[in-house]
Amino acid sequence: MKAEIIAVGTELLMGYIVNTNASDIAQELLDIGIGTYYQSVVGDNSDRINEALEIASSRSDLIFLSGGLGPTEDDITKQVLAEFLGEELYYDKKQLERVETYFKNQNREMTKNNYRQALTIKGGETILNDMGLAAGLIYTQEKNNKTIYYIVLPGPPFEMKHMLNEHVKPYIRSVVAKQGVISSKYINLYGVGESFVADKLSDLIETQTNPTIAIYAKPKRVTIRLTYNSVTYEESEDVLDELAEQIRQRFTKHFIGYGSEQLFEKFIVDELKKHNKTLSAAESLTGGLVLEKLTNTPGAGDVIVGGFVTYQTEQKVKMLGIPEEIIKEHTVVSAKVAQEMAERTLNLTGSDLAISLTGVAGPRSLEGHPPGKVFVALAARNHPVQVEELNISNKPRHVVREVAEFEVLNLVKEFLNK
Amino acid sequence: MKAEIIAVGTELLMGYIVNTNASDIAQELLDIGIGTYYQSVVGDNSDRINEALEIASSRSDLIFLSGGLGPTEDDITKQVLAEFLGEELYYDKKQLERVETYFKNQNREMTKNNYRQALTIKGGETILNDMGLAAGLIYTQEKNNKTIYYIVLPGPPFEMKHMLNEHVKPYIRSVVAKQGVISSKYINLYGVGESFVADKLSDLIETQTNPTIAIYAKPKRVTIRLTYNSVTYEESEDVLDELAEQIRQRFTKHFIGYGSEQLFEKFIVDELKKHNKTLSAAESLTGGLVLEKLTNTPGAGDVIVGGFVTYQTEQKVKMLGIPEEIIKEHTVVSAKVAQEMAERTLNLTGSDLAISLTGVAGPRSLEGHPPGKVFVALAARNHPVQVEELNISNKPRHVVREVAEFEVLNLVKEFLNK
Repeated sequence: MKAEIIAVGTELLMGYIVNTNASDIAQELLDIGIGTYYQSVVGDNSDRINEALEIASSRSDLIFLSGGLGPTEDDITKQVLAEFLGEELYYDKKQLERVETYFKNQNREMTKNNYRQALTIKGGETILNDMGLAAGLIYTQEKNNKTIYYIVLPGPPFEMKHMLNEHVKPYIRSVVAKQGVISSKYINLYGVGESFVADKLSDLIETQTNPTIAIYAKPKRVTIRLTYNSVTYEESEDVLDELAEQIRQRFTKHFIGYGSEQLFEKFIVDELKKHNKTLSAAESLTGGLVLEKLTNTPGAGDVIVGGFVTYQTEQKVKMLGIPEEIIKEHTVVSAKVAQEMAERTLNLTGSDLAISLTGVAGPRSLEGHPPGKVFVALAARNHPVQVEELNISNKPRHVVREVAEFEVLNLVKEFLNK
Repeated sequence: MKAEIIAVGTELLMGYIVNTNASDIAQELLDIGIGTYYQSVVGDNSDRINEALEIASSRSDLIFLSGGLGPTEDDITKQVLAEFLGEELYYDKKQLERVETYFKNQNREMTKNNYRQALTIKGGETILNDMGLAAGLIYTQEKNNKTIYYIVLPGPPFEMKHMLNEHVKPYIRSVVAKQGVISSKYINLYGVGESFVADKLSDLIETQTNPTIAIYAKPKRVTIRLTYNSVTYEESEDVLDELAEQIRQRFTKHFIGYGSEQLFEKFIVDELKKHNKTLSAAESLTGGLVLEKLTNTPGAGDVIVGGFVTYQTEQKVKMLGIPEEIIKEHTVVSAKVAQEMAERTLNLTGSDLAISLTGVAGPRSLEGHPPGKVFVALAARNHPVQVEELNISNKPRHVVREVAEFEVLNLVKEFLNK
């Protein structure tokens, strides 16, 4: 089964919003063994939506349409699809009730354009929207000697994902139960480059057919994706686990976990749990980024106690009690200040470990220090404080912050693995 | 000129990474008056890249290809394009020198697959990569009685954006200097729904031809996009400014700034500057999100002093000094605790305003409180503390955190506007 995703919306096309729906749908499809072969974005324009449907129906048999189901005049996805299929639109009674109830509960008057959201296509199956007002639908068509499935979902990611998981995935799973599956497994490494990894795996890559091996690089990180075509999930899992373990053993020092998402924070939270240690942080240039990422990880509540965002220099004195003279003598971007931040945070919070970050995110320099100059530190009970200097030159502000985050997490990783 | 963006990469297609390049390119094109009509994603597969090129060259005349220029075997974008154009590949001398210098400076041995990154297409113009190793290129083709421009850029967003801004935009600007321009302007509102806005603007929307008006909704927010076709940028700017001001006046209470990005944090930072006030925060369920977003805004250093992430309940005692009895009596998710957090943060940091957030992000409930129950507070010198209770039910963790963030920023907005 070949999937294709068409996202509809001028706001996507113009770049005003990022197309996260395409990646979310593709990931969920992969999870049930279906590969996405094409993704496209078209504006709220009937000719171009129609053209996208023509192309998609000629080459794919599972076609997702997301977006363009809202109440405004330019939301026309269902209208164009209905015409393309030669079917009529009608109001789904249940969804209409939901729309009406919503406005009643909110004590707001329902405007006539809201009715549009309850529209669905004759001959299809309505997917009720539990999280919003626009109904989705599934329509099955026999065309060119094949069965084509059209799945229409709303644009707002939260509504889309809910309907995808609750209704669409089970439906597709039942349809494809008897076909083959594609599965993937991801191996994440930190502190290595793409070509180094490619070289280390060249023997495996050169002979790859099934599973295949692909390497993706991000700043200071590399992800290796293994993909396997098989008959059953069980077979697939065994083969992928074995190969993944074989690869992990070649990179034990750099391994930071399996999984398709960036999981360094999760890896750290899991390692802290394993070692029964708690962690706090004092952040300056990252302004809360490290704590936000760590606390966004499920289960963080047990091991991440919290911390300080001492963004203005003065707050390092007020919140942490670092003597002003120390900051004056060493400047705020210094190994000494990073060390003081980590030590004092350890003592103030009572956690087992404390990390700190101070530096220049840029684009401007700070007290004579260039953008990208950063000090990160790790304090632990009965251990000398470790401080590391980073020079992340020629990178924009958000990359400097991100690299600083990863480096300080790497200090935690190395400390726990000692 | 009709632009089309083809992003190449199996990692995009499978949903492993989100296609931010498409939105970045589209935004920059819009900025120089060029509309993007199609976006697509194909995997690292020569047949499908070729098919995408066939379709694109039949309907568009400015074709962007991003991704697939890396050193690994599956990076084949330039190879496929060269074949499609009937041209040969060669190594660009300058880029090759850069690759060699890079490995020399890093004291790493250069592997043979790294040479691939310096490849370029005969008859085209190489775009040197200042931020990475893979060269981009521009190729001009006369086909079907029109001129088609192919722009090849690397996949890593930071490299791509730099080359786009430094090399490609000036190039395109010179090519299209004599054609008409499309410009857009965005108006952001908080605390209103899409259909309410549509209704309030129905007189303008029904008669719209040029400029056009489109409405986009996110949780609790709405963005109105105005788009105008004209001959010059100056004319366009005048017309859009006038219409935007007319619309803004209909929503003065909800207006949170102009601009194509989510700018509530920037709006707050600007308002703080205007009123000469500093702000600190104490965060619990948001774990640093609010401070991170605020400090990520240019100019935040003048008005955002920092704050506390009191993630574990115990830290509200340790860091802020809230008496344990108060937390026991009211529970940690309570108006009283939110009030104490804000007041104590105000006093500890010495800022003019302090905000606080405590609540349940979910998915599990906390001490009997359901997910989505949140208290936000605002403390200011010589004013009673304001506390607001939120019940953000049926939303995932990250939406609860985001809505809580926006609600507490809205408290700051309303306070400053009083």
